[in-house]
Amino acid sequence: MSKIESEERLVHVPLGERAYDILIGPGLIGRAGGEISTRIKCRKAAIITDDNVGAIYLDPLMDSLQTDGIEAVSLSLPPGEKTKSFDYLTKVCDVLLEARIERNDAVIALGGGVIGDLTGFAAGIVRRGVRFVQIPTSLLSQVDSSVGGKTGINTRHGKNLVGVFNQPDLVLADTDVLNTLSEREFRAGYAEVVKYGLIDKPDFFAWLERNWRDVFAGGPARIEAIATSCQAKADVVVADERENGRRALLNLGHTFGHALEAATEYDSSRLVHGEGVSIGIALAHRFSNRLNLLGVEDVARVEAHLKAVGLPTSMDEIPGELPSTEFLMEAIGQDKKVKGGKLTFILTRGIGQSFVADDVPASEVFAFLEEMRGV
Amino acid sequence: MSKIESEERLVHVPLGERAYDILIGPGLIGRAGGEISTRIKCRKAAIITDDNVGAIYLDPLMDSLQTDGIEAVSLSLPPGEKTKSFDYLTKVCDVLLEARIERNDAVIALGGGVIGDLTGFAAGIVRRGVRFVQIPTSLLSQVDSSVGGKTGINTRHGKNLVGVFNQPDLVLADTDVLNTLSEREFRAGYAEVVKYGLIDKPDFFAWLERNWRDVFAGGPARIEAIATSCQAKADVVVADERENGRRALLNLGHTFGHALEAATEYDSSRLVHGEGVSIGIALAHRFSNRLNLLGVEDVARVEAHLKAVGLPTSMDEIPGELPSTEFLMEAIGQDKKVKGGKLTFILTRGIGQSFVADDVPASEVFAFLEEMRGV
Ligand SMILES: NC(=O)c1ccc[n+]([C@@H]2O[C@H](COP(=O)([O-])OP(=O)(O)OC[C@H]3O[C@@H](n4cnc5c(N)ncnc54)[C@H](O)[C@@H]3O)[C@@H](O)[C@H]2O)c1
Ligand SMILES: NC(=O)c1ccc[n+]([C@@H]2O[C@H](COP(=O)([O-])OP(=O)(O)OC[C@H]3O[C@@H](n4cnc5c(N)ncnc54)[C@H](O)[C@@H]3O)[C@@H](O)[C@H]2O)c1
Ligand SMILES: [Zn+2]
Ligand SMILES: [Zn+2]
Repeated sequence: MSKIESEERLVHVPLGERAYDILIGPGLIGRAGGEISTRIKCRKAAIITDDNVGAIYLDPLMDSLQTDGIEAVSLSLPPGEKTKSFDYLTKVCDVLLEARIERNDAVIALGGGVIGDLTGFAAGIVRRGVRFVQIPTSLLSQVDSSVGGKTGINTRHGKNLVGVFNQPDLVLADTDVLNTLSEREFRAGYAEVVKYGLIDKPDFFAWLERNWRDVFAGGPARIEAIATSCQAKADVVVADERENGRRALLNLGHTFGHALEAATEYDSSRLVHGEGVSIGIALAHRFSNRLNLLGVEDVARVEAHLKAVGLPTSMDEIPGELPSTEFLMEAIGQDKKVKGGKLTFILTRGIGQSFVADDVPASEVFAFLEEMRGV
Repeated sequence: MSKIESEERLVHVPLGERAYDILIGPGLIGRAGGEISTRIKCRKAAIITDDNVGAIYLDPLMDSLQTDGIEAVSLSLPPGEKTKSFDYLTKVCDVLLEARIERNDAVIALGGGVIGDLTGFAAGIVRRGVRFVQIPTSLLSQVDSSVGGKTGINTRHGKNLVGVFNQPDLVLADTDVLNTLSEREFRAGYAEVVKYGLIDKPDFFAWLERNWRDVFAGGPARIEAIATSCQAKADVVVADERENGRRALLNLGHTFGHALEAATEYDSSRLVHGEGVSIGIALAHRFSNRLNLLGVEDVARVEAHLKAVGLPTSMDEIPGELPSTEFLMEAIGQDKKVKGGKLTFILTRGIGQSFVADDVPASEVFAFLEEMRGV
């Protein structure tokens, strides 16, 4: 076995008849044809990608599929969150049907979370479900969105409000492709990596504090961080596939984060998802401290690490004006259902000691947000 | 217990955590609020209907829901097959989100198969799935489409090509509402009732031969026929929820039927689904006879019954010109995958002795169709 292959990691997601493998390592796009044809045995595939990713990785992927006898068509869409829409969903379904993709053929998502969410949804509804392979190309999609089966699109009412649970049949996380991802997008994805440590893996968080430079640089530490993250997400998903309980922990930092995304109108020049999560994580720790759940040293430690890698930790780092605290509260209420003035939040009692609190008074959250904004 | 309630029948569909009940009987719309609130415990509901059905049954349904404390909104769509489209799917999802339908609220389909298929799909994808109640109002939807969980829409590539498996949480088949259904639509739905007898219930077919006039007239025989049909469909669905094997038997008469629907461009003034199925059933029996599987007396018996109720049994009863046999073969190939010149067909060895044949030579089918058309 060559050195390159020995670096490869495999995370198995044991979901019964929906079980699948996640392969993590360098050069996987070049070997995609072989991995897909031995595991899925399809003869035909359709690749959905975006223009940024397609320009670099579509040809190598097509070549690899062809070498292994898989006939493939492709569709490249504009990059960006707006592509997760009913219009593009219709378009993708049309292309899959035009290509006569059948139940045992494969639909391949080649791109970040936007392409993965949209494509996974289309693959779940065309002919009521065809085979689905994720080739996530952003750090965020490798450690988060490609694992777990949530797919969907946005509507004018909010993000991810329409979709299906559709577990992929295979995930190929090629760690080399992250070299062409922008610094900013890499950092944003890293916020989700940190999140897994803070949910329930204090040792992993400590490891990240020591090794983050190597994770950013690439090589074995990067593969290790991605594999640990995928395993963490897989464990939660297996325990609670349909998000009735424990899976909510994955929302650490996301209640505040989503509200900030709404507040910036999903304008990625101001804030991308992972940056919102980073601020949200910092706020969740501060808020837990305010509720006397967490010591101030732990808040400082979390913020220090996020800052070290260049992630934002407070609302005033977001360029431009933020709307009123009432607006943020409204956005929080939409996100997590308000029950008689009580909100559900992920709080924490220490590094890696998060828990679901479903009785947080809305008034406490309001006062906290006002204070954080220095109002 | 009043006489009316004693006529009511219940068919349970035992699908584990997706199990549900089908209630069949008179006056169910007037009792819908009670049935839904005791079984689903939702406080909010959205009713999707079409203009024909809504004009008669929306108010009584809204009243019944209100009486039992369920707050409801409604949306009425144009009747007809064209409503099963991406455009209307988008519209329905938008209305459900606007009404803030949450995971435990109910979406109610009040109408025939068109409304049921579209609404079931929307209920399966809004928030990745909310509660779903079927109130089928056509005979076809009561005996077929409301049971089994197939939902979906049409695209320019064909019928039902995009959708999800989404079992309802409850089905209320109010047999009174069939009194306002047109004779033609009632007859068309009846073709599916006959189908269950011909698949594997010879005694039921014989019962229909004797009692069809009472089924058409209403009363206990109608309830009996609908309940037997629902039970038959439920049995097949439970044995094979995702259509990998036995469920294919439900396609008896449908391979030819779908080809004829395509040939008439889904123009319901020329042919409605059940009429296509009726001709398809007759052709499937004739074709089985041609393959020396079935005696000519059985062919005659099946045709005689279909004719007695006023259903068509041959292609020349379809008004207007039919396209070429090549076109029909192409439509058949789209419908059931062609494997190396072999087609999958439901054939039969006698009344109620249908089976799946996956090795029918395309050339035999071609010759048969030419002969039937008198070419
Ligand atoms: N399904 C889930 O469980 C889940 C979880 C988290 C996030 N999400 C969703 O994921 C989306 C965000 O994903 P994302 O951060 O990957 O965004 P993205 O898909 O928009 O990708 C970010 C940007 O990086 C570019 N890019 C991606 N890979 C690249 C590469 N290797 N080289 C060069 N450029 C590359 C893209 O073209 C895009 O411009 C959101 O829509 C979010 O809702 C889903
Ligand atoms: N999901 C499944 O398993 C499944 C199975 C079979 C058929 N289908 C689908 O079902 C559809 C056909 O269903 P359909 O035959 O019910 O058609 P439909 O919904 O178009 O109804 C037929 C007509 O009858 C009217 N109508 C319905 N109930 C009425 C009532 N009580 N009084 C007066 N008018 C009434 C409707 O407005 C419509 O004009 C097709 O789209 C077909 O693909 C689905
Ligand atoms: Zn996230
Ligand atoms: Zn039918």
